[in-house]
Amino acid sequence: MIFPFTPIVGQEEMKTGLILNVIDPSIGGLLIMGEKGTAKSTAVRALAELLPELKAVKGCPFNCDPEGVICSGCRENQARGGLLEAEQRRMRVVELPLGITEDRLVGTLDVEYALKKGEKRFEPGILADANRNFLYVDEVNLLEDHIVDLLLDSAAMGVNTVEREGVSFIHPARFILVGTMNPEEGELRPQLLDRFGLCARVTTIQDKSLRVEILRRRAAFDSDPEGFSQTWKAEQENLSQKIIVAKETLSEVAVEDETFEKIVGITSQLSLDGHRADIVILKAARALAAFRNKKNIGMEEIKDTAHLALSHRLKRLPFEETSPGRNQLHGILSGLTS
Amino acid sequence: MIFPFTPIVGQEEMKTGLILNVIDPSIGGLLIMGEKGTAKSTAVRALAELLPELKAVKGCPFNCDPEGVICSGCRENQARGGLLEAEQRRMRVVELPLGITEDRLVGTLDVEYALKKGEKRFEPGILADANRNFLYVDEVNLLEDHIVDLLLDSAAMGVNTVEREGVSFIHPARFILVGTMNPEEGELRPQLLDRFGLCARVTTIQDKSLRVEILRRRAAFDSDPEGFSQTWKAEQENLSQKIIVAKETLSEVAVEDETFEKIVGITSQLSLDGHRADIVILKAARALAAFRNKKNIGMEEIKDTAHLALSHRLKRLPFEETSPGRNQLHGILSGLTS
Amino acid sequence: MIFPFTPIVGQEEMKTGLILNVIDPSIGGLLIMGEKGTAKSTAVRALAELLPELKAVKGCPFNCDPEGVICSGCRENQARGGLLEAEQRRMRVVELPLGITEDRLVGTLDVEYALKKGEKRFEPGILADANRNFLYVDEVNLLEDHIVDLLLDSAAMGVNTVEREGVSFIHPARFILVGTMNPEEGELRPQLLDRFGLCARVTTIQDKSLRVEILRRRAAFDSDPEGFSQTWKAEQENLSQKIIVAKETLSEVAVEDETFEKIVGITSQLSLDGHRADIVILKAARALAAFRNKKNIGMEEIKDTAHLALSHRLKRLPFEETSPGRNQLHGILSGLTS
Amino acid sequence: MIFPFTPIVGQEEMKTGLILNVIDPSIGGLLIMGEKGTAKSTAVRALAELLPELKAVKGCPFNCDPEGVICSGCRENQARGGLLEAEQRRMRVVELPLGITEDRLVGTLDVEYALKKGEKRFEPGILADANRNFLYVDEVNLLEDHIVDLLLDSAAMGVNTVEREGVSFIHPARFILVGTMNPEEGELRPQLLDRFGLCARVTTIQDKSLRVEILRRRAAFDSDPEGFSQTWKAEQENLSQKIIVAKETLSEVAVEDETFEKIVGITSQLSLDGHRADIVILKAARALAAFRNKKNIGMEEIKDTAHLALSHRLKRLPFEETSPGRNQLHGILSGLTS
Amino acid sequence: MIFPFTPIVGQEEMKTGLILNVIDPSIGGLLIMGEKGTAKSTAVRALAELLPELKAVKGCPFNCDPEGVICSGCRENQARGGLLEAEQRRMRVVELPLGITEDRLVGTLDVEYALKKGEKRFEPGILADANRNFLYVDEVNLLEDHIVDLLLDSAAMGVNTVEREGVSFIHPARFILVGTMNPEEGELRPQLLDRFGLCARVTTIQDKSLRVEILRRRAAFDSDPEGFSQTWKAEQENLSQKIIVAKETLSEVAVEDETFEKIVGITSQLSLDGHRADIVILKAARALAAFRNKKNIGMEEIKDTAHLALSHRLKRLPFEETSPGRNQLHGILSGLTS
Amino acid sequence: MIFPFTPIVGQEEMKTGLILNVIDPSIGGLLIMGEKGTAKSTAVRALAELLPELKAVKGCPFNCDPEGVICSGCRENQARGGLLEAEQRRMRVVELPLGITEDRLVGTLDVEYALKKGEKRFEPGILADANRNFLYVDEVNLLEDHIVDLLLDSAAMGVNTVEREGVSFIHPARFILVGTMNPEEGELRPQLLDRFGLCARVTTIQDKSLRVEILRRRAAFDSDPEGFSQTWKAEQENLSQKIIVAKETLSEVAVEDETFEKIVGITSQLSLDGHRADIVILKAARALAAFRNKKNIGMEEIKDTAHLALSHRLKRLPFEETSPGRNQLHGILSGLTS
Repeated sequence: MIFPFTPIVGQEEMKTGLILNVIDPSIGGLLIMGEKGTAKSTAVRALAELLPELKAVKGCPFNCDPEGVICSGCRENQARGGLLEAEQRRMRVVELPLGITEDRLVGTLDVEYALKKGEKRFEPGILADANRNFLYVDEVNLLEDHIVDLLLDSAAMGVNTVEREGVSFIHPARFILVGTMNPEEGELRPQLLDRFGLCARVTTIQDKSLRVEILRRRAAFDSDPEGFSQTWKAEQENLSQKIIVAKETLSEVAVEDETFEKIVGITSQLSLDGHRADIVILKAARALAAFRNKKNIGMEEIKDTAHLALSHRLKRLPFEETSPGRNQLHGILSGLTS
Repeated sequence: MIFPFTPIVGQEEMKTGLILNVIDPSIGGLLIMGEKGTAKSTAVRALAELLPELKAVKGCPFNCDPEGVICSGCRENQARGGLLEAEQRRMRVVELPLGITEDRLVGTLDVEYALKKGEKRFEPGILADANRNFLYVDEVNLLEDHIVDLLLDSAAMGVNTVEREGVSFIHPARFILVGTMNPEEGELRPQLLDRFGLCARVTTIQDKSLRVEILRRRAAFDSDPEGFSQTWKAEQENLSQKIIVAKETLSEVAVEDETFEKIVGITSQLSLDGHRADIVILKAARALAAFRNKKNIGMEEIKDTAHLALSHRLKRLPFEETSPGRNQLHGILSGLTS
Repeated sequence: MIFPFTPIVGQEEMKTGLILNVIDPSIGGLLIMGEKGTAKSTAVRALAELLPELKAVKGCPFNCDPEGVICSGCRENQARGGLLEAEQRRMRVVELPLGITEDRLVGTLDVEYALKKGEKRFEPGILADANRNFLYVDEVNLLEDHIVDLLLDSAAMGVNTVEREGVSFIHPARFILVGTMNPEEGELRPQLLDRFGLCARVTTIQDKSLRVEILRRRAAFDSDPEGFSQTWKAEQENLSQKIIVAKETLSEVAVEDETFEKIVGITSQLSLDGHRADIVILKAARALAAFRNKKNIGMEEIKDTAHLALSHRLKRLPFEETSPGRNQLHGILSGLTS
Repeated sequence: MIFPFTPIVGQEEMKTGLILNVIDPSIGGLLIMGEKGTAKSTAVRALAELLPELKAVKGCPFNCDPEGVICSGCRENQARGGLLEAEQRRMRVVELPLGITEDRLVGTLDVEYALKKGEKRFEPGILADANRNFLYVDEVNLLEDHIVDLLLDSAAMGVNTVEREGVSFIHPARFILVGTMNPEEGELRPQLLDRFGLCARVTTIQDKSLRVEILRRRAAFDSDPEGFSQTWKAEQENLSQKIIVAKETLSEVAVEDETFEKIVGITSQLSLDGHRADIVILKAARALAAFRNKKNIGMEEIKDTAHLALSHRLKRLPFEETSPGRNQLHGILSGLTS
Repeated sequence: MIFPFTPIVGQEEMKTGLILNVIDPSIGGLLIMGEKGTAKSTAVRALAELLPELKAVKGCPFNCDPEGVICSGCRENQARGGLLEAEQRRMRVVELPLGITEDRLVGTLDVEYALKKGEKRFEPGILADANRNFLYVDEVNLLEDHIVDLLLDSAAMGVNTVEREGVSFIHPARFILVGTMNPEEGELRPQLLDRFGLCARVTTIQDKSLRVEILRRRAAFDSDPEGFSQTWKAEQENLSQKIIVAKETLSEVAVEDETFEKIVGITSQLSLDGHRADIVILKAARALAAFRNKKNIGMEEIKDTAHLALSHRLKRLPFEETSPGRNQLHGILSGLTS
Repeated sequence: MIFPFTPIVGQEEMKTGLILNVIDPSIGGLLIMGEKGTAKSTAVRALAELLPELKAVKGCPFNCDPEGVICSGCRENQARGGLLEAEQRRMRVVELPLGITEDRLVGTLDVEYALKKGEKRFEPGILADANRNFLYVDEVNLLEDHIVDLLLDSAAMGVNTVEREGVSFIHPARFILVGTMNPEEGELRPQLLDRFGLCARVTTIQDKSLRVEILRRRAAFDSDPEGFSQTWKAEQENLSQKIIVAKETLSEVAVEDETFEKIVGITSQLSLDGHRADIVILKAARALAAFRNKKNIGMEEIKDTAHLALSHRLKRLPFEETSPGRNQLHGILSGLTS
């Protein structure tokens, strides 16, 4: 049993970042930076728990959406006249172990099957498990470079194409990538930082009464998990409902010219590499507007999401720990009038 | 034959830390820091020796508790209508060899069986052996990082989930993790330090009469192990009994609001990463109260366990050997009035 | 669906470099240097999309041109009296994954086939896929040295000759090599830099109205890819047509003695290693003249391509970030009168 | 033919250290530190040569003592009603090659047998050969850490327990561990130094007449090994007899309270890690008393063995070559009155 | 089609070094040092192209000379009464890929054949291909040391002897070794430098009219390879003829006592390691005399070859880039009167 | 055809060192230190060429002496009543390739034979080839440490004992170890230096007339190997005869007490590690006396061999290139009066 999402105290950046990605997965994932012991893993699992079940093709190891993009296997099935029967599945948090090999990540030839039956078959990898789920990478900065590359490529393309050892397979690989890193334990190459849509910082809470509250809730959960969960049921269902509605109404939020200018007004004052931040802010702000049940994107939404999209994209001089841009960003954002 | 637990001279931190973990395994293990030749390994084995036998499912390599969480194998067995017959087993100290591979730790496909019978079968790893036992890792700082990660993940989740090479297996992996390290021989990443519930320091005893006593007892044991053990039988049984009672009455120890505040009153004065220390102190203090046969947690218990939960979680500046927090912690704890 | 080529805002160096290589592939590829998030990968894919289809031998995994150089397989086929039936294929962007092995790059023995049929057969590698296509290498500076060597050798020779494990196979390997690198993330050996025909720099656009335009187009594409593409259809077809014409008329552009002197007049003032730059400028300027529908190469064309051919070939003193030659080059080029 | 033990000139520390370990193997081995070319390996082999033969179970590859602890194989044999027939065997010096793998050290599955007979069988390793023999490790400081760990663990436990690849085997592994190291060629971790019971230093002899004697004896042996050995036969048998008697009477040497205090009186003045030195001095002094045919342990024996047990256990400051403790130790020992 | 040899502009050192090695392969190969883009690889291929065809044993993978030393295979063939039928073959430039394994270099057991036919057969390596051809090693300083060793050993012995995995095979391995290196990219160990007979430096040509000529010829070749080659046909045939004559008359060039003294007169003034330079100058000067159609070796020939034989054999102080010997050598050579 | 031994100009240390080892192989090999191009390898091969043939057991891959120590194979053969038929064999120079594996050095299981016949058979390694031959290790300082260890162990023991993979085999491995190293390319550990009996230095000859002579001889040999060899036939046979006689009379050279004192008189003045030098000087001086046809060892012989035995055994301070002992040694030796 997992500690529920809503009673998590504080850490609003992280919670917002996760929820926005659920509403619009094209935002491109969330990188959580911060110290150990700050409930990062718990939060992701807890959020997955309260999301509604998905429809998936029965028996399909790639978690294919019967009404969406499907894998080579399902397509062959259809071609042979088969029906893609649907079943309900919970969203899962798939964890990427450090030290994973390329084979295990993208999938490979099923050697055993090949030996026995003399036929080639694709053995799904972690990217198959991850389709339409969360893919959680703890300490992403400790992952080997070429694995991170593969991961981010799949995340960007939304499909995993495998062609090797004579096996050819394509399956959708649309997941919400959540990485964590402790900035004290080594950097991530800027190339890779940029590929995460948003970045949230988590910190240890110093406020004494909040800490008492955290401890009280944790102790309550530990001694009676079911009872505790019952207490928070209404709040959980409320949040779940808000997310479902936001997903449905997202495309109805208007994107206006003025919005473009507001966003570029912020980013053009900063020293950033590339233009990816602009589109990410746009998407995140729109998702936030949908979550707030608004029909268009206000300065409020831009302000509330810009920090998440920008902090990890500021140029950093070598050997400098805090980039000069960080203060500047703070200044710009706090100077905005909604 | 093993040197018994009760005649071990001194090293109270270590002995307390071990006993508290036995009473409440959810405390999360013990890291023993200290010099060589200080009976660390002996103490763990000796404690295991005096604990009562466990009930386990007969023939189950995962040491499943017939009345608790069971492994995939036992579950299949039950599903086929089989009865989970129980047998008595001693608690063991399972050692994790340095240089262990991931395969051996989490288990793997039994290749031989597969080749012979054409059926996939799970070959249990060290985590299977460790279930409901002590898992002892000597010089944990010399272990490879990804092994430590796997270990601590299993310790945290209480289960070991293996899905590879077409084998899918889940078994409980609830063990008391005891690691040792000599701080002179390399650090443990803070990420990992934090995952050990408690940390005890052992030191060489300088007091001359105590050293004579240690030598006398060791010499006596070496020349007549059985006779020596007989001498300490009553003390051993007394301790064993106290532990059994404490385990049974643990849930009866009251956890009061005031306790939360006392704990946070200590931790919020210190520079710590994350909130894990708070809940650990709570659990350790409660276990100590149970061991002392008290009905609620006094300041005494908090004071006596806070050091074990906090010393390894103090933030350390790079290149500093003793963190400034250590003196501060000492000051805070000695200022407390019970 | 891919963001189309013509609505890409700015980055003229990169766009020109790509188009010139399409017109005359013997120019020798393009190295794109610049920051992340600047649409490098998008641009290559987008250009491939608008190019006309190729004729290829039906079923040939090496993409052989039925009227050009063919692979060992096609040749054997012909020798047995077979006809090389043609089919139409789109140009593709083949990506070279970091961490690729030599086997996968050049192809290898098809072990499975050998085991089953007792016959040796060649299993094509990435170089086979790349024939007559784009070969895209992201972060080429992170590739292992011996892979880069193999790659550039094949690029230079235009064929891939494999002789190992008793298999002997030759196939054409004429591709447009496009590499990218972020100069902040490590250097490429001068040996290798020189092997790229042209080098383009991409930068983040700072101009506010251009950034708004980029964001607007991206947002438009993201919310309605098909509609957006429709809007740009005419421009796309126009460019496509210009490229087709330039390819056809390339050999008609006159190469005059005066042109040689103009080129050497520039390069002999600079401190360069080797003479490769001279011939590259000649070819690029000629391709540009063809693209501009001119019958001979003017100073304009030399000026407009010299920078692309020279900037990465200037000698660099060790530990110097900008070579003194760069300013000098700028001076020379801006002093030229068309 | 091996150069005999008694004509070895000088090197008394090494010779005493070896003899004491033969009398009481629980002392825990000998580390010989010193320069090359000082007959270290010769001495061990020569001592083994003059020791009496052992009784061992006929055909048992683990050298099991028919009247002592036996291996899994012998136990199964007994269980099937088999008799453990005895044979006489010479003590051997088993050498541990640098670069040995874990498999070869502890033993492994006999793959060939498994493939042929379809049954798992244990293939004994070096630890099996070493049981009840000398295990000689030249340049122990160059051994890989995890091998040293395995080695010292077995030495401490006296058994080798192997559980892997489905094979489960236990056999006694009681050997006299003799390691050598040249302190100029890298250190041994303090952790490991401490695990050797005693430590002897060997040095090049500078005295001219002694050197002539060494050369004379070596030359005599080289030109006529058998004649030379004959000359020393009586001395060899005399020593052999003294060792046999000492082993038999060891348990009769009284261990008195006063002895504990004398030992702790020495060790508590020094800065040592852990308490292992105390018990080692006790055992070594008792073995020496038995060798000297005394009924109790005098100050003489303590003094004569303390140096062997202490020199390698003195705390050393980093980067210091001679620990301050060494002079101190010398002062303490020379101040003792027998 | 390859750019022909004679129209290569400048780079006389390299061209002379190649031609001399063709005339007398016992000179021991050529190391070409210099910057990228200076036609090193082109020159070797171009020279091979204009050399006459060789007679080789038909079907022999070792390129055996039917009238010279033959391989184990041919010898067995002869022994069975077979005739060594001859065929004409072009000289080839065999390239040694970086990262080559020892197996591929010297040849190995043909595993496939062994498995199928139950017979051991030798699978030829690169050294087999190289027999009587050029062996070209680009960036020889990046090759692994043990590969360079193997290579130079074979070059020195003229045979490749393989004895492993139960296969025993000898074949001639007489090749002209041509290595290139860019001195800016790492050194070659002096041990290895010395094993190359001659060393030529290539540089970028700065002269403007020469550069125009290079560009003009390259452009002419690129647009019409066949026409261009036709233009240079006479010059090519002339050179070819001169080389053939020189090879035939080489042994007729007189070697006089005076010549020895002239050579040692130069080398004994320099600080060189070993005596290999002396014999190399002798051979190179003789080959040059033959090429110049002279009947004995003049001071001219010694002067013109001494630099090629000496520059890479001058002792170099560590960390010095130009050895003091280089100026000295220049002084000596320019002081010689022909 | 190999350049013969006697016409080698100069390098007396090396030539003497080789000859002494041939006369008495128990001297323990020769380490040749010096620059490249100084005929080290040539000298060893040339000496082997002029030595008389050996009697060896026909067909035995271990080169067993039918009248000496024989291998397990020959012993089994004898046990089955087989006769050890003898054949004549030339002495060979077996080369140890850098990068050799342990398997290839000591021999291993013949896997192919095992698979085919179901029987284990020993596949001989380089140590088998080396028995009773020269074992030549070029650049011994570049060999991996554990290979050097194995090599020197075998050299010291005179046998190679292999026990692994269920194969058990012993064969004699008595070879003359000749190693070379260039002291500019890395050191050998003192541990290993000491294991070479003698050490000779070779240098480039600076004397002009000697260099002319070297060149003249080399040129003569290169143009007519057979004629050249004929010229030196008498000198070669003379040397061969002298070596044969010296081997036969070696044991007749008297070893007197005075000799011991003379040797120790030299060595005890120096700072050496261990006593191995003393016995080596004794053996080398005796071999030299036999070569000089003397009946006892004069001061002359000691003086002439002491340098070869001592120079590499002088203690060296770290970071010092010439040990202070070297001058001292020179002084002592030149002060001796014969």
